[in-house]
Amino acid sequence: MEDAKKVSKRTDAVANRARILEAAHSVFAEHGLDLEMQEVAAQAGPGLGTLYGHFASREDLLRAIVQSVIDDTLAQMRAALVSGADDPRKAFLALASAALHVQHQYRPLFAVIRDRRLVKLMDPSYAQRVRMQFLEIPKDLLTQGIQAGAFPQDLDQDMASVTIMGAFINAGNLLGKERSPDELAQQLTQFLLRLFTGQASPEISGDGFPSPT
Amino acid sequence: MEDAKKVSKRTDAVANRARILEAAHSVFAEHGLDLEMQEVAAQAGPGLGTLYGHFASREDLLRAIVQSVIDDTLAQMRAALVSGADDPRKAFLALASAALHVQHQYRPLFAVIRDRRLVKLMDPSYAQRVRMQFLEIPKDLLTQGIQAGAFPQDLDQDMASVTIMGAFINAGNLLGKERSPDELAQQLTQFLLRLFTGQASPEISGDGFPSPT
Repeated sequence: MEDAKKVSKRTDAVANRARILEAAHSVFAEHGLDLEMQEVAAQAGPGLGTLYGHFASREDLLRAIVQSVIDDTLAQMRAALVSGADDPRKAFLALASAALHVQHQYRPLFAVIRDRRLVKLMDPSYAQRVRMQFLEIPKDLLTQGIQAGAFPQDLDQDMASVTIMGAFINAGNLLGKERSPDELAQQLTQFLLRLFTGQASPEISGDGFPSPT
Repeated sequence: MEDAKKVSKRTDAVANRARILEAAHSVFAEHGLDLEMQEVAAQAGPGLGTLYGHFASREDLLRAIVQSVIDDTLAQMRAALVSGADDPRKAFLALASAALHVQHQYRPLFAVIRDRRLVKLMDPSYAQRVRMQFLEIPKDLLTQGIQAGAFPQDLDQDMASVTIMGAFINAGNLLGKERSPDELAQQLTQFLLRLFTGQASPEISGDGFPSPT
């Protein structure tokens, strides 16, 4: 009985924390660094005391927002790579799709997340670590593709990585108002695969999704 | 004499405005949307009265900051295209170099310029107009290159444009701490020209700058 109560309390705490972070995301997207704890508490529901129980200060909450957005972005892109592990062309489309969807999902947050004052709140090595994590994802895709013989062996992996991720991000920024994430993912994958492999991809069918093999 | 005085007054006003904008850029990079008119006046020198003579409100000044950064960024990239108008490979390197240098120059400002509250201060059509202007620059490069026979005729120009500009921006963001703008411009140009033309570029010599032709 005592144990069941403990588990239920812990489950409540996890749910509360998630609800607070969700509210904090929306307040942060609206007000950026001017986010106020009272507004977050009002939107999340559980009261200012509970909020401070989870996040000891405004700075703590801001750090948790950044961390959760970055972690979720990386997780969605890594999951895409795993889902296409059997075929580099499928992995390419899955990664493009994940990158464009997550960018669409977090657009208002990405617009304020690079504020220098926010970067200063983080651990000094944080920004560099995140940059490396974002570079590793397209590099993993390229390594898979080179091993499978889909991409040339002598590809400059740093340049290829910044080009692939840059194309995803910039397409979302410049064309994301007119075209859906799925449409852009399909068009970019067609274009980039052709560029990187020197030929149109037979695995991508007319509707832009990998045909079952 | 009267005319000379008028001209000199106008010259002073232009110089004052430029000095205020320069100070405003630095205050804005530090404080984002929390920029205070008094701090700008203190940094610029000419006093709060003169500041309000040039910018009737804080919002006016914020709008002018955005406009000046965007206009200068576009101008530097357009000038690069013009400087390489006789050779698409030279134009490519000049554009890469301008994009990476301007990004380096304005890095702290670009980190806060996408704040939604700032976007709301601008004319409703402003963001879309700027997006189109940023797409036009690589499109002009591609048109030049296709006409000169350097790039294939059937290139998807939208996808090629977001890929080129995205590669420049993302290289600056992810690798700009470790490599200089010139180094990145050279490496990206080598990589992308090879990708887009299907061959290493003979015009780019070992030091990364176009050899005289």
